Amino acid sequence: MKTIKAAVHSLGNIGRHVIDCLISAPDFECLGVVRRVESLGTQALERQNLPDFASIDELILSRGKPDVVILCGPSRSVPEDVRQYLAKGICTVDSFDIHEEIPSLVRSLDEIAQKNGSAAVTAAGWDPGTDSLLRALFEAMVPTGITFTNFGRGRSMGHSVAARSIEGVADATSITIPLGGGRHSRLVYVLPKPGASFDQIKTLLASDPYFSNDPLDVRQVSSPEEMAAVADNSHGVLIERIGASGTTSNQRLAFDMRIDNPALTSQVLVSCARAVTRMGPGCHTIIDIPPVMLLPGDRMGHIARLV
Amino acid sequence: MKTIKAAVHSLGNIGRHVIDCLISAPDFECLGVVRRVESLGTQALERQNLPDFASIDELILSRGKPDVVILCGPSRSVPEDVRQYLAKGICTVDSFDIHEEIPSLVRSLDEIAQKNGSAAVTAAGWDPGTDSLLRALFEAMVPTGITFTNFGRGRSMGHSVAARSIEGVADATSITIPLGGGRHSRLVYVLPKPGASFDQIKTLLASDPYFSNDPLDVRQVSSPEEMAAVADNSHGVLIERIGASGTTSNQRLAFDMRIDNPALTSQVLVSCARAVTRMGPGCHTIIDIPPVMLLPGDRMGHIARLV
Repeated sequence: MKTIKAAVHSLGNIGRHVIDCLISAPDFECLGVVRRVESLGTQALERQNLPDFASIDELILSRGKPDVVILCGPSRSVPEDVRQYLAKGICTVDSFDIHEEIPSLVRSLDEIAQKNGSAAVTAAGWDPGTDSLLRALFEAMVPTGITFTNFGRGRSMGHSVAARSIEGVADATSITIPLGGGRHSRLVYVLPKPGASFDQIKTLLASDPYFSNDPLDVRQVSSPEEMAAVADNSHGVLIERIGASGTTSNQRLAFDMRIDNPALTSQVLVSCARAVTRMGPGCHTIIDIPPVMLLPGDRMGHIARLV
Repeated sequence: MKTIKAAVHSLGNIGRHVIDCLISAPDFECLGVVRRVESLGTQALERQNLPDFASIDELILSRGKPDVVILCGPSRSVPEDVRQYLAKGICTVDSFDIHEEIPSLVRSLDEIAQKNGSAAVTAAGWDPGTDSLLRALFEAMVPTGITFTNFGRGRSMGHSVAARSIEGVADATSITIPLGGGRHSRLVYVLPKPGASFDQIKTLLASDPYFSNDPLDVRQVSSPEEMAAVADNSHGVLIERIGASGTTSNQRLAFDMRIDNPALTSQVLVSCARAVTRMGPGCHTIIDIPPVMLLPGDRMGHIARLV
């Protein structure tokens, strides 16, 4: 089995899980981590005997050129970081999750990738990501009908960040609770800053566009420890589609998953990092990837085993 | 949207549902049906205003060359029928379902397709088919662990045919009942031939390799009407995988589907018929197809809507 050389960009929660997935995979070698200069040498990369570098050029100088870089920083910095790697002819995979910006990101990354003979897979987490693939498959099986994507119960990173940006909030955790029919309520735990009014925070939250469209339950916590006690990584989704194949109704499909969120996101990133080295130049999403390319090893072996 | 010209090969239960799916699709034109000479003109194709032909050459002469032929005959005749179309440079899709023969079929069809610049998608029903894709996806998300495919409750075509071939059996219907853990029991309704011993049929069934490995419940019916009353098309599957992403355990995935069996098989055939016209030459399975190719219309539109 050919070994794929991977580098990890940014070392947060996702980055650490990505390293775990790379080490667990039979066909990857992790060359090291690219991270901010001020973070170098911090956190125990020694366990995995992995070096860290302030730039991809330094990593290449020391470890050679990776086949693929796995982007583990925040979505906001993904477009610029990916461009940098694609321009150097290095493949990338990221879990960019701002749904409405994905089409324009695909177009702009595709141009850079084509020009440099490199390839990107973008929006490769679980939603966007594997959920997207399932929604596409469900429509191929049952073209007429409605799909509901019911998230949770679990912590929403996007809503937690939005709540933290509210005036007077020291920390916040937003839990997504499914109500059925693709609707959700939000349970938000808030740690107010000293002297801040919890009632005013509640009012501001209720009018924020992230929260104003759904039933909202805001609860106060009084310490970072109390906040930590409700902020675990459990998450899940139930994707339901009922409809017709041809004119035959009552076709019922459901996908139900209960997972550790960063572990799954990281595993999808690593499986897509494998696939991107097998795809042609350009920017791809998970619905553009032949599923067999996500798996290690030989295509005919998978056909014999899975088909 | 470009119109795909399709022809249907063989007009049984699947063939009729395939015509229904083609007519329901926004991007297909059904040119007609190729069927045995002795069947020509029988069954109401007039409803859809579709002509039937004794050979593909006659269909081409009358209606022009189809982009794809959808094979709706029994699995046993699929390899030879597909070869005929691929050799003429026509794409094919079939739902060949003899799992252990799929790899060698892929290899032999691939050679003919490559030589003639045509493409085939084989084993494109729901198992093998969409279940295969889900098993691949589940492994990409959770590489360590066990997948169980639990079929039913529903009528098994393969087991019904096997039961009908037992000495003394006039007709049989075999229902698959899931026991969990990927194990199944078989409930077989038997209509004995006049004078045949039901007890002897039970003994023969119990020792048949199709039935000898699973719990077996054989029941006698006394008329074709009674048989018809238990032989509907309801079916389903529950695919479960529990395992680890990287080293994080307790990742739980499940796909649950409850469907009309021939309607779903036919819809998958039609979605794969769309995809095969977009794939390069060769023989493909559903795990080789980028999922977006299964859907009508524009890739960027699907990315905006589904990813």
